[in-house]
Amino acid sequence: MRDVAIIGVSQTKFGELWDDSFRDLITDAGLGAIKDAGIEGGDLEAMYVGNMSAGLFVQQEHIASLIADHAGLTPIPCARIEAACASGGLALRNGIMAVASGFHDIVISAGVEKMTDVVDPTPAIATASDQEWEAQQGVTFPSLYAMMARRHMHEFGTTREQMAMVSVINHKNATKNPRAQYPMEVSIDQVMNSTMVADPLRLLDCSPISDGAAAAILCPAEDAKKYTDTPIYVKASAQSSGSLALHDRKKITTIDATVNAARKAFQMADMTPKNIDMVEVHDCFSINGILAIEDIGFVEKGKGGQAIEDGMTQLDGEIPVNPSGGLKARGHPLGATGIAQAAEIVWQLRGEAGKRQINNAEVGMTHNIGGTGGTAAVHILSK
Amino acid sequence: MRDVAIIGVSQTKFGELWDDSFRDLITDAGLGAIKDAGIEGGDLEAMYVGNMSAGLFVQQEHIASLIADHAGLTPIPCARIEAACASGGLALRNGIMAVASGFHDIVISAGVEKMTDVVDPTPAIATASDQEWEAQQGVTFPSLYAMMARRHMHEFGTTREQMAMVSVINHKNATKNPRAQYPMEVSIDQVMNSTMVADPLRLLDCSPISDGAAAAILCPAEDAKKYTDTPIYVKASAQSSGSLALHDRKKITTIDATVNAARKAFQMADMTPKNIDMVEVHDCFSINGILAIEDIGFVEKGKGGQAIEDGMTQLDGEIPVNPSGGLKARGHPLGATGIAQAAEIVWQLRGEAGKRQINNAEVGMTHNIGGTGGTAAVHILSK
Repeated sequence: MRDVAIIGVSQTKFGELWDDSFRDLITDAGLGAIKDAGIEGGDLEAMYVGNMSAGLFVQQEHIASLIADHAGLTPIPCARIEAACASGGLALRNGIMAVASGFHDIVISAGVEKMTDVVDPTPAIATASDQEWEAQQGVTFPSLYAMMARRHMHEFGTTREQMAMVSVINHKNATKNPRAQYPMEVSIDQVMNSTMVADPLRLLDCSPISDGAAAAILCPAEDAKKYTDTPIYVKASAQSSGSLALHDRKKITTIDATVNAARKAFQMADMTPKNIDMVEVHDCFSINGILAIEDIGFVEKGKGGQAIEDGMTQLDGEIPVNPSGGLKARGHPLGATGIAQAAEIVWQLRGEAGKRQINNAEVGMTHNIGGTGGTAAVHILSK
Repeated sequence: MRDVAIIGVSQTKFGELWDDSFRDLITDAGLGAIKDAGIEGGDLEAMYVGNMSAGLFVQQEHIASLIADHAGLTPIPCARIEAACASGGLALRNGIMAVASGFHDIVISAGVEKMTDVVDPTPAIATASDQEWEAQQGVTFPSLYAMMARRHMHEFGTTREQMAMVSVINHKNATKNPRAQYPMEVSIDQVMNSTMVADPLRLLDCSPISDGAAAAILCPAEDAKKYTDTPIYVKASAQSSGSLALHDRKKITTIDATVNAARKAFQMADMTPKNIDMVEVHDCFSINGILAIEDIGFVEKGKGGQAIEDGMTQLDGEIPVNPSGGLKARGHPLGATGIAQAAEIVWQLRGEAGKRQINNAEVGMTHNIGGTGGTAAVHILSK
């Protein structure tokens, strides 16, 4: 098995992008990554695209072929990888596997979602939960995470203010990210007085509906210096499944898939949480920003809220979380998120993150979740 | 890169399976393959599931997590792979890659589609074509293949009767396959007098709407004899993309993705068409049974119709095609087809194909297409 490096990344601006179609977005991201890697499109040998539901959002399946065709990449092999909101993380992992195995040398892993072409995206998003046991009973995604939040408050004394802080920090970071959907600061008061969505989660606890795409170019680690002076190396690529439906879990204050994937990733990289200089976590709802730092192991279970209140996760904190603005403020085009997280870590490790640059960062992590934790993908990247 | 073997396969009956839900079907297939391989579910290290559009057919994305949960396989990594009707072939290929790379040892590659839970499956199927340039203009799948058929007739003198023969042979083979959806013989006259769907294609030129699932268990070739006396080895796993939309192609009488994938597969296996003892081709419409044997290279371009008329593809012919009954008569649950094709070749190579057994078969091939050829996956398997 060969070591793998990331030699180019790109992300479109995330937002309500009325002027960009599905195929435009992903092609823009792909061309950006190709340019960033200093290669030609013809150098690519395979493509993996993370996408949750182009079928329901833009009535298009078979999207990998569409993209290869539109981008002039035929006849390379290409596949769509789907695991709800973790689709991007899995596309990254499958690209890594394709290079590690020796099947291919230069591979593009990308992610895309165009969510604003439907009147109501809620039913499409709900297909990431268990349709028969959750969605058809009227349970939406905010309400699933609201149950997790309420239980976390009950068990550990996590406060509404601590959850609000997750959003506050994300939005502050996003003001320094030109690709973010909502680059404006919000206050704890604003979060706590925003429209109620599913008690205790309010509008500003929830990641937005977003269009966007991101891409990364992978090659064997031994070849990476041919293309760039600043290759970023894949130290671990781990993935776990968990119960799709919430009612099947012993606990709803822990996401087992995160615990398992993180443990496996640390094992692969021969590292502990102390080795990680920054992390992009999957904070689709503010409570998940707390669960993530607990389940990965940066703090003990139940201490996440306090850690956030204490400033541990801020840009200049002990473990900066979501320098990009996270799902909450950078935006969350479902299939693109896992790749956008990797792009942020690459920019940080290269020292190209502008005003949100974290000093002396050597090792970064991405954490991408599908649904309420039916899937988790964790990657560790280093200089 | 390690060699890979198939040590277990399974297929549910294909048909209009009103009593089986999506999750039942895939779990049945998976358990069947696990039993066939003589392993325990706990031995599985990863799962790849081919599925075209559970989002549109049963309002469920995130299906790999659903299946892992329902089948008790959590926390193993699992992903859905999608490339329209080639989803199964790609799930097989990704499973092979996962084992070849050393990421995992024992992997299950499966495929499933539940198509009969919607009033009209046509719009969902149309999402395998180019939504903006084909489907939204009113072009359905039969009409796309009808254009290819009409042009093939015009350029090469292919006759209506020759196309009908593709269906006749498939249905004859299906009578010997207990898992086939339509195990009854049809005559050339019946095909040619069946309801017109899209001129020149009639109802009996078209594969049916099907529910079903199939699964295969993979492991490193060097370990295969631990599990079975009759491992089947993967000699080649090749894939190609092609133009999604028909109007972008220089020719519509050749599927470039098939040509490229087959060429690559022969190269990987160091074989030529003469080494292949039987093949399962993607005959979603009768014309595709003709295109496939030409594009793979069993006959020259334009000679496919005559070869079929001459009996070349019959069970006792020079190159038996679709001993299973093919997409036409075994049935075509989109995401399951690529895996079902591999299961048929495995049964044939093991000598377990019952009344449809081909004698002295040493090497078999599968050919799985997405859309009208936006994707093709070709595998070569041998004793």
